[in-house]
Amino acid sequence: MKIQTPVYYGDYLQLPKILNAQAPESTKYGKTAHDETLFIIIHQAYELWFKQILHELNSVREIMQQPFVPSTDLSVIIARIERVTTIQQLLIDQIQVMETMTSLDFMEFRDFLVPASGFQSIQFKLIEAILGIKAQHRMEVEKQFFNSRLKAEDKKLLEAEEARISIFELLEAWLERMPFSQFEDFDFWGEYSHAVDKMLKQDREIISNNPVLDDRTRTMELKNLDMTQNTFNTLLDSRLYSAWQGEGKVRLSQKAMLSAVFIYLYRDYPALQMPFRILNALVEVDEKFTTWRYRHAIMVQRILGTKIGTGGSSGHEYLRSTTERNRAFIDFFNLATFLIPKSMIPALPQNIKDQLDIVYDSFRP
Amino acid sequence: MKIQTPVYYGDYLQLPKILNAQAPESTKYGKTAHDETLFIIIHQAYELWFKQILHELNSVREIMQQPFVPSTDLSVIIARIERVTTIQQLLIDQIQVMETMTSLDFMEFRDFLVPASGFQSIQFKLIEAILGIKAQHRMEVEKQFFNSRLKAEDKKLLEAEEARISIFELLEAWLERMPFSQFEDFDFWGEYSHAVDKMLKQDREIISNNPVLDDRTRTMELKNLDMTQNTFNTLLDSRLYSAWQGEGKVRLSQKAMLSAVFIYLYRDYPALQMPFRILNALVEVDEKFTTWRYRHAIMVQRILGTKIGTGGSSGHEYLRSTTERNRAFIDFFNLATFLIPKSMIPALPQNIKDQLDIVYDSFRP
Amino acid sequence: MKIQTPVYYGDYLQLPKILNAQAPESTKYGKTAHDETLFIIIHQAYELWFKQILHELNSVREIMQQPFVPSTDLSVIIARIERVTTIQQLLIDQIQVMETMTSLDFMEFRDFLVPASGFQSIQFKLIEAILGIKAQHRMEVEKQFFNSRLKAEDKKLLEAEEARISIFELLEAWLERMPFSQFEDFDFWGEYSHAVDKMLKQDREIISNNPVLDDRTRTMELKNLDMTQNTFNTLLDSRLYSAWQGEGKVRLSQKAMLSAVFIYLYRDYPALQMPFRILNALVEVDEKFTTWRYRHAIMVQRILGTKIGTGGSSGHEYLRSTTERNRAFIDFFNLATFLIPKSMIPALPQNIKDQLDIVYDSFRP
Amino acid sequence: MKIQTPVYYGDYLQLPKILNAQAPESTKYGKTAHDETLFIIIHQAYELWFKQILHELNSVREIMQQPFVPSTDLSVIIARIERVTTIQQLLIDQIQVMETMTSLDFMEFRDFLVPASGFQSIQFKLIEAILGIKAQHRMEVEKQFFNSRLKAEDKKLLEAEEARISIFELLEAWLERMPFSQFEDFDFWGEYSHAVDKMLKQDREIISNNPVLDDRTRTMELKNLDMTQNTFNTLLDSRLYSAWQGEGKVRLSQKAMLSAVFIYLYRDYPALQMPFRILNALVEVDEKFTTWRYRHAIMVQRILGTKIGTGGSSGHEYLRSTTERNRAFIDFFNLATFLIPKSMIPALPQNIKDQLDIVYDSFRP
Repeated sequence: MKIQTPVYYGDYLQLPKILNAQAPESTKYGKTAHDETLFIIIHQAYELWFKQILHELNSVREIMQQPFVPSTDLSVIIARIERVTTIQQLLIDQIQVMETMTSLDFMEFRDFLVPASGFQSIQFKLIEAILGIKAQHRMEVEKQFFNSRLKAEDKKLLEAEEARISIFELLEAWLERMPFSQFEDFDFWGEYSHAVDKMLKQDREIISNNPVLDDRTRTMELKNLDMTQNTFNTLLDSRLYSAWQGEGKVRLSQKAMLSAVFIYLYRDYPALQMPFRILNALVEVDEKFTTWRYRHAIMVQRILGTKIGTGGSSGHEYLRSTTERNRAFIDFFNLATFLIPKSMIPALPQNIKDQLDIVYDSFRP
Repeated sequence: MKIQTPVYYGDYLQLPKILNAQAPESTKYGKTAHDETLFIIIHQAYELWFKQILHELNSVREIMQQPFVPSTDLSVIIARIERVTTIQQLLIDQIQVMETMTSLDFMEFRDFLVPASGFQSIQFKLIEAILGIKAQHRMEVEKQFFNSRLKAEDKKLLEAEEARISIFELLEAWLERMPFSQFEDFDFWGEYSHAVDKMLKQDREIISNNPVLDDRTRTMELKNLDMTQNTFNTLLDSRLYSAWQGEGKVRLSQKAMLSAVFIYLYRDYPALQMPFRILNALVEVDEKFTTWRYRHAIMVQRILGTKIGTGGSSGHEYLRSTTERNRAFIDFFNLATFLIPKSMIPALPQNIKDQLDIVYDSFRP
Repeated sequence: MKIQTPVYYGDYLQLPKILNAQAPESTKYGKTAHDETLFIIIHQAYELWFKQILHELNSVREIMQQPFVPSTDLSVIIARIERVTTIQQLLIDQIQVMETMTSLDFMEFRDFLVPASGFQSIQFKLIEAILGIKAQHRMEVEKQFFNSRLKAEDKKLLEAEEARISIFELLEAWLERMPFSQFEDFDFWGEYSHAVDKMLKQDREIISNNPVLDDRTRTMELKNLDMTQNTFNTLLDSRLYSAWQGEGKVRLSQKAMLSAVFIYLYRDYPALQMPFRILNALVEVDEKFTTWRYRHAIMVQRILGTKIGTGGSSGHEYLRSTTERNRAFIDFFNLATFLIPKSMIPALPQNIKDQLDIVYDSFRP
Repeated sequence: MKIQTPVYYGDYLQLPKILNAQAPESTKYGKTAHDETLFIIIHQAYELWFKQILHELNSVREIMQQPFVPSTDLSVIIARIERVTTIQQLLIDQIQVMETMTSLDFMEFRDFLVPASGFQSIQFKLIEAILGIKAQHRMEVEKQFFNSRLKAEDKKLLEAEEARISIFELLEAWLERMPFSQFEDFDFWGEYSHAVDKMLKQDREIISNNPVLDDRTRTMELKNLDMTQNTFNTLLDSRLYSAWQGEGKVRLSQKAMLSAVFIYLYRDYPALQMPFRILNALVEVDEKFTTWRYRHAIMVQRILGTKIGTGGSSGHEYLRSTTERNRAFIDFFNLATFLIPKSMIPALPQNIKDQLDIVYDSFRP
């Protein structure tokens, strides 16, 4: 390797560009607000990190698009998704910096920014889209905000991304290709069903004998239990499951869902460790964005109360309502419903065990 | 000072008591669950911290109960409330330790704990009560949980605490004693009212001229603005304000609220710095508990899905619903609504300024 | 399952014991110091968590003591060590609570505690011992502190623990049992050696051509490089390596070290993922304690300056000096020295690859 | 107010500039390294935050440069310094993102960056300089790094900043202007001296009677105590103090130091609250940078071991050695040495008390 030109820190990072990109609007109106620089830099930092997140998610998609995903690529996928969640934690922490700005100071320049709004961050929308949020998963009110507020070129970018295959879809296909929804010589899901019945019977007894429940609560709890029973039945019955999908209660296909449940139950086997960690990391991505939206909504309310924001509208109600929205991997988050106590999990036949195992301790080349 | 007996670390901390207080229920059933120890220790750590929080809040109440609170006590109040919020952050962080427990492992001992429940933490209820949450502020469903689930002695403890004066009440009385709701020779609230009108007029123009709003949204926004206008009117009109209180929209008296608004607006004056910090710290106490409840609810859902908890009932819906409840200082959180841009805040006459000021830089003894 | 007696939250957690174990010494001298309760509760919380850490580490040792460690146990080991690091993060965060105590307040009760000292926490010493710190790894000054300050029964506990096999020793044996230090038909370490030479040659060129280095610095850098070269030579030569061990520069056996290097280089293979994560988690345990010691030393200095502590001696210099001590897994932390760029890592022959691999995507039961 | 042009989010933030400033060097060599983008973006985020920190510190300097600093400006100073520490916490957290990069991946592009180095961050050096670090406070080795590595224009920037008055100097002058180093009718420092003697006498007794100390340790501790006594003597004796300054043991003038000690002791008085918080916040700035340097050095060692970094030299030893360096406000950090228990602090005469006080509770306009 021959080094051609010595690299200089500031040039490498293109700092003249980066550090000359802060032009407060308030200055144009002759009354520079000290805190507007903070407002600009916080958002620029967000956008830098969004770029990095897109860099990681695009590479994850590329890897998962291979017809066959080699096992050595799985740890790369995990590392990159986990990097995304580490960055997300930083995005959450960054809100604390924003919170050093008071109402009084923010209102000094808010009006000059109308109608710019964080909803116009195209990169953030692209992140949602690559994860798996398509136009049809967005709320009406959110889409409205878009139609009127995104530049044509940004709209086009988003539509193009929505037309591409998402990580959710690739993950679903990958889970469907796994052999766990049906085994040849072993009625796994029958065994699982027995275990579930046993567990629910115990739950029923507990509720019935719980000395602290009054009758009304007991009745309500037993009704809840019937619903839980129902949920399990639905998981295992393709017709019921399809109906569920039709109602939008679940997005993932039944085949993929069964693989996911199997992975969660037998995650301790080496062969399932990495698939488990991939699912887990994606749920974490969803959760971090949820926490971020939640913290962001609280901060806005603390600064503005019920007054209007930079978008020229009072966004806090809308912000609050979206906290729980746009979660591409919510089905995996909800998967806890299908788990059962470790001691009740069906024992696997030796031939299946062998395929899920690697014997580290003594293997010889 | 004469030291009588040398102190030994383990004896001083009474470690034999503390470290022999972990008896897993699962052991009694002959199948000790490894993770139950974690479950016990986490909750014991919570209770230790609750004791510390009560220690601080009781001392704050004692200080504030003095007929006259000397100014040197104010920084003591602040330090102790801020210590509470630092501890609360730890309570929030502690959830991450709980999250290292999987569904499969938790379900190994969950059933043995029925019907014990975190709702039975009497110390937590005492904390809420001393802050200002009385029986009438609790939701019906929450009270129901209590009646059936608290031991008689614990119920009595809570009722006794609810009968005592709370920090909210002491704070309200303290704010009412301040002279900010009406000045002798200066119509402060008239000036404030003018500033508000000016600000809202500007907001109205912004909405009207906002090029990205469609007509329906614009109409909605203008209606929102009317409501904001209304909110300001209510603040300044004792009859309207009383009606508001009657509807439960606000708990704080008008007199106290006006003092609070004044403090928030002129917080930069030395005389108002510490009162401002007290209000702010109490809002933070509320917020930290809200965050804690939110994170806790998410964790429960992640571990249990829709299945029942140790209380022998599926608490997650209830948990979710209480996230935003039991905030004693919500009125101060919402106070942002009444703030206006720094540059629009009325100038104070010199005689008032003088009383809010201390001249550090050059004063001579 | 038959539930015998309904469990009550407060009884289950033995709260009467836990919450009646705070007796400030200052009270005995007739001048109760408000902050002493905090001091007690913080340390009790530490000790509760130390108990939990010991619970996890003891179970890890038990698992690793099996003559053959089944692969499904590896993820249990990882989960438990990672739980330890999560708890450690809490221990670090807890220092922020301690920092809410001022010098002025601490000195109100410091004198009453003489000569109690955190060095007397027997549980902390047991944690160090089970990880792998034996008496001979402790500094003279630390041992001195012990001899005079531990109760006889606590001394006995520590000696008993030091006589048992530690996690470090079990890990070393486990690594030695792995087949990576020598392959039958493949001279892996020869290939590695070539790659290293290539890398160092490049480094040498970079230093020689680095335009910003003056002659003195360049000479120093080239000397550093010679030392790095030496380090690699030592790794691969059993005689040199033994000498190194003799000098205390490394504790791990050469055989175990080679396995560890192999694992770090080929961690992306499924068979090496879990071993890699175990090593990594143990390094993290060391690092968290280092950070904890560091933060603790800073806090003490901030509160006491150069004055004496509760131990009746000025511990801060000693505290500072131990920050980097007592790291059982320092050899793994330093392992970065032996890593090389991904693109230079020797390609493995197919038969070895196969044994390190599992083909998830398409395998059939 | 008339809004001239509607603002668009992406234009306002100049995103085309910001998001097109990532050009990996590895691409130029035909082998784009995935992780180099992360490396670039992390450093760009650092530089954005450095710009914000400079924005705050410059405004603090400007405020403090006024011949008379009005008291309402003090809370502005506090808010801005506290914002700096909030940002610093983010800088520390950001290291966790860097830590997601492995040795193997970093080494893929490290060589292409030679000889760029973080030491070339001119903004970071400017921050140190504005806080109070002049050329003479830097280590020889650090200055060497500069002379050879900074561009001429950057060198000039730094020299210009070093020629300006720093926050340390302004703070020192402000403390000197305060009347606390000598009172007219009250021998405060005499009283303080008595209290100190009493405290040290008690300490001496404690050490002498401490049953757990062996003779050698006791002798050493008593010698330490003599040194502490000496330290107090030095504080109060201008000749001894000057000698101390000459030896570089302290930078702050005696007059300023006495004011600072007074402020720390009587911080509960309203008049001293804000000065205390300013000193405290500046110490925090120092500490956060120290923690950041420490974490950064650990991370480099973890990734590189003893191999060379992008600067084309093995920086880790140097990094380690600077952890504790370049602290402009170290004298305030060390001030704990001069504090005494709250109950021993001399009572102030009423006329001084009055000047330090504001009576909030009942004052009338």
